Amino acid sequence: MELLARTCDLITTPDPAVAAATQALLDDKTKPRGSLGRLEELACRVAAIRGTTTPSVAHKAIVVMGADHGVADEGVSAFPQAVTAQMLLNFARGGAAINALARHAGARVVVVDMGVKEPLPPVPEIRVHRVRAGTANFTQGPAMTRAEAVIAIETGIRLARELADDGVTLIGIGDMGIANTTPSSALAAVFTGAPIEELCGRGTGIDDAGLRRKIDVVRRGVARNRPDVSDALDVVSKVGGLEIAGLAGVALGAAAARVPVVVDGFISSAAALVAARLAPAAAASMIASHASVEIGHRAILRALGLRPLFDLELRLGEGTGAALAMDLVEASLRILDEMATFSSAGVSDRDG
Amino acid sequence: MELLARTCDLITTPDPAVAAATQALLDDKTKPRGSLGRLEELACRVAAIRGTTTPSVAHKAIVVMGADHGVADEGVSAFPQAVTAQMLLNFARGGAAINALARHAGARVVVVDMGVKEPLPPVPEIRVHRVRAGTANFTQGPAMTRAEAVIAIETGIRLARELADDGVTLIGIGDMGIANTTPSSALAAVFTGAPIEELCGRGTGIDDAGLRRKIDVVRRGVARNRPDVSDALDVVSKVGGLEIAGLAGVALGAAAARVPVVVDGFISSAAALVAARLAPAAAASMIASHASVEIGHRAILRALGLRPLFDLELRLGEGTGAALAMDLVEASLRILDEMATFSSAGVSDRDG
Repeated sequence: MELLARTCDLITTPDPAVAAATQALLDDKTKPRGSLGRLEELACRVAAIRGTTTPSVAHKAIVVMGADHGVADEGVSAFPQAVTAQMLLNFARGGAAINALARHAGARVVVVDMGVKEPLPPVPEIRVHRVRAGTANFTQGPAMTRAEAVIAIETGIRLARELADDGVTLIGIGDMGIANTTPSSALAAVFTGAPIEELCGRGTGIDDAGLRRKIDVVRRGVARNRPDVSDALDVVSKVGGLEIAGLAGVALGAAAARVPVVVDGFISSAAALVAARLAPAAAASMIASHASVEIGHRAILRALGLRPLFDLELRLGEGTGAALAMDLVEASLRILDEMATFSSAGVSDRDG
Repeated sequence: MELLARTCDLITTPDPAVAAATQALLDDKTKPRGSLGRLEELACRVAAIRGTTTPSVAHKAIVVMGADHGVADEGVSAFPQAVTAQMLLNFARGGAAINALARHAGARVVVVDMGVKEPLPPVPEIRVHRVRAGTANFTQGPAMTRAEAVIAIETGIRLARELADDGVTLIGIGDMGIANTTPSSALAAVFTGAPIEELCGRGTGIDDAGLRRKIDVVRRGVARNRPDVSDALDVVSKVGGLEIAGLAGVALGAAAARVPVVVDGFISSAAALVAARLAPAAAASMIASHASVEIGHRAILRALGLRPLFDLELRLGEGTGAALAMDLVEASLRILDEMATFSSAGVSDRDG
């Protein structure tokens, strides 16, 4: 708890003067002012977070945290619970979508077992930080204890700090956990106050009956646990998940280290919202990658004050959208770093 | 003219069976079916165009064509006409936005002078295919002759064929030409029939008076020349541009060689529309990269039947949006090439 409190205290809002200085540099490049739109915004945002007009994202990592969810017992997912562990092993062997897209982005993938139901065979590519063997079914009581939530968050904080110490300057967050859109919808419901039906989607592909069941499960979970919206630890422990709490910690640790965090889709954004409720300034260190097919994602992004970079109708998770967005972050910094200025290139400025 | 006619005859619709076979391969990968959304669509599209379920885009090129426009005399741009030539030299030296983004995408940039007003000093990085020293002011008569339009288009066809012969399997198209949003709006007006006010934007950044002037210039140009909408050569020669005709040729040559063409913004899309009116099947070989800030872009994309991949509020041209989209094309093929299948990874499929 001490680490969590200390980390939250360290998080400050990025310096707007650095953003303005970066925009001034971009305005002198050989292109009409502002003509690279959100790519320019992105460069300014990364510069401000890093606190320098010459940021580099040469070292990138995507943290993918996996855990199981007691609510899977309620039949809210199209896939069996064993898939969580199977997919972590797939990540370890490099065969999943996130591996392919992280290789494309030049990012390493850090796979973490935050608490799948059955312990995995030990493989060097998976870090084991099992807080417990999956959460409890939150329709029956809290998903985890407050102390467990703190352990999960502090695990994420330590990992982000370790990556930053290793020279990583861009961190993506991604998730794996069968049934984890359900706690994400519950977190969105508590934090945003939006109607539950507007926050529940089809996840990996449930049918209409499954969707009705899921909405009912979220409603029962929230009613049963009555989380205190003003106490983010209470909310995440009662209706959250272990990987969600862990990723919230990664976001906090990264923000404290002034490392931009590229947020993936619905579940990662729910984790980001937990982080922002623990330390509101953390949201300014985040970059929203994409708008997910999951309908609740919009409400979460709105609550975070973030605007996604693209909408490719993704609904996979794992950090796949974050990996794609890393390409854009890098492209934006290429513009800042490599372009000639009007005077160096001998190009006339406007109205010339 | 013979090359143009022969090329149009060669263009066929990509094989839907290859797209379906590619989707079947993607459906066996370790992810919920369809969960990578438009990335999956993109892989299928590229596969169908290439005619193989194992396409590669290892060799990429972005063709940036530059030319001047007689209508610049009407005061329709915020930048002086000399900037066209200055920017081509900037491309040659590697200092422009397209250079930075093409390096990021791993694409070579092929710079072509299709007809800037004053001849450039010879530099090895610029191919000189000057059809004429800029177009004529189309408010006074046709921008160029029909024969000149054919020469420009056939230049593009030859270049695309040469790149394909060199092993390039993904071609982006980009433009440079002060005032060239004006002929693009004129082409959009003739081809789509939409009201001219809805097709004219601020280009590099003209003010309200400039925008009113531009709308009037387009209206006068179309009224004066009365292009025949059923004859794309008539339209592009009367109200088009040399780089626009050249890029239309690149799109045709690429389609004939079964090489996907990544289309940049408003001007490149106007060129793509010229190509599609010359050979309707060519549109199926195109990939729309982004939705431009230029309001006329939407109408052109609609006419092409293309949906852009992203909207980053770009309005630069040069092929910058195409370069960014190449990253997505490559990412989509990584998914197809590198991901494990459910059975190879030992992951349970849904409802398991």
